[in-house]
Amino acid sequence: MELFDYIRSSAAFRVRIALNLKKLDWETVPVDLLQAEQRGEAYRALNPQGLVPALRLDSGEIITQSLAILEWLEECHPEPALLPADALARARVRSLMYAVACDIHPLNNLRVLKYLIGELGHSEEEKLAWYHHWLGLGFAALEQQVQGPRYCHGDALSLADVCLVPQMFNARRFELDLAPYPRLVAISQHLESLDAFVRAAP
Amino acid sequence: MELFDYIRSSAAFRVRIALNLKKLDWETVPVDLLQAEQRGEAYRALNPQGLVPALRLDSGEIITQSLAILEWLEECHPEPALLPADALARARVRSLMYAVACDIHPLNNLRVLKYLIGELGHSEEEKLAWYHHWLGLGFAALEQQVQGPRYCHGDALSLADVCLVPQMFNARRFELDLAPYPRLVAISQHLESLDAFVRAAP
Repeated sequence: MELFDYIRSSAAFRVRIALNLKKLDWETVPVDLLQAEQRGEAYRALNPQGLVPALRLDSGEIITQSLAILEWLEECHPEPALLPADALARARVRSLMYAVACDIHPLNNLRVLKYLIGELGHSEEEKLAWYHHWLGLGFAALEQQVQGPRYCHGDALSLADVCLVPQMFNARRFELDLAPYPRLVAISQHLESLDAFVRAAP
Repeated sequence: MELFDYIRSSAAFRVRIALNLKKLDWETVPVDLLQAEQRGEAYRALNPQGLVPALRLDSGEIITQSLAILEWLEECHPEPALLPADALARARVRSLMYAVACDIHPLNNLRVLKYLIGELGHSEEEKLAWYHHWLGLGFAALEQQVQGPRYCHGDALSLADVCLVPQMFNARRFELDLAPYPRLVAISQHLESLDAFVRAAP
């Protein structure tokens, strides 16, 4: 499998972690977001959305959207399981995953921050305030909802953990004060010590 | 089941459609976003994220995040199926669903538009330009990826359709020119004629 990848993309980072956890053979195909390569014709022929990541299977088929890739991996390469067996527990894990992937990350990725600076003419300071506002809202809720001390849900790794760690990396990069979120910090510290996460990190 | 609901919320609208398609018994519990009721203590005790929708099951358990509710409904009330049987087709449907739910909707919901006007001091015109920018990017890609003429994927209703229609409603409300997206318009027109969609509409 080939992963169309950008090292700092949180969405691509999620998929790298899952590919490692599932012990799959994969190669990275770098797409340079800083050069806007993802909006070029060659990449758009593969993924009209012009976003990373995308996964090219050995059959040549392409799956776009990080969460669609994660769910496909879970269905086709079920070991180790990253979703619990019980439906209500699965809903809980997915709810935490979406809290990151639908309510935090989309507001803080590169294209949005660039638009705030470029088209809207905001300062670096205003951009950071935007970032911290949405991340703070999202993390405050997550801090109440995760269980810990080692995983977001129960005593096993799940897709919620796979989504949390890239967001924590990103938060540190943008200098968010993490002191109000001790459970998120503890979970993330544990996860970041695991080999699959270490090898996936930017 | 009780759905904590706001009539104009696109995320809640998705769940109303799915509940209707699955022919389930459910009641609405209105949460007034304009009065910020979703951020009040009573609602946050149910859903720390302070967002609609949330689904309270007859057992009392609560599921948050619209996509987690959709996946739970699909697992626990599988008829009619809203995901195809084949794993690659499921990935394709989910990719379309996430294109709406992770890349379009989060940038254009009420809380973000309010922040642009309030905290960032933008005009109504700049707010609309923001809205049209992100919706235009997202819809241009979706227009290439959907199949049509009646459904986003293949010849059956799916979760991609459940997510598309609320976004189309929202786009019309914010006066996006839909002429560049004839396939999205055709699919949406067909879907909006179906009873489950009619009864779920704002």
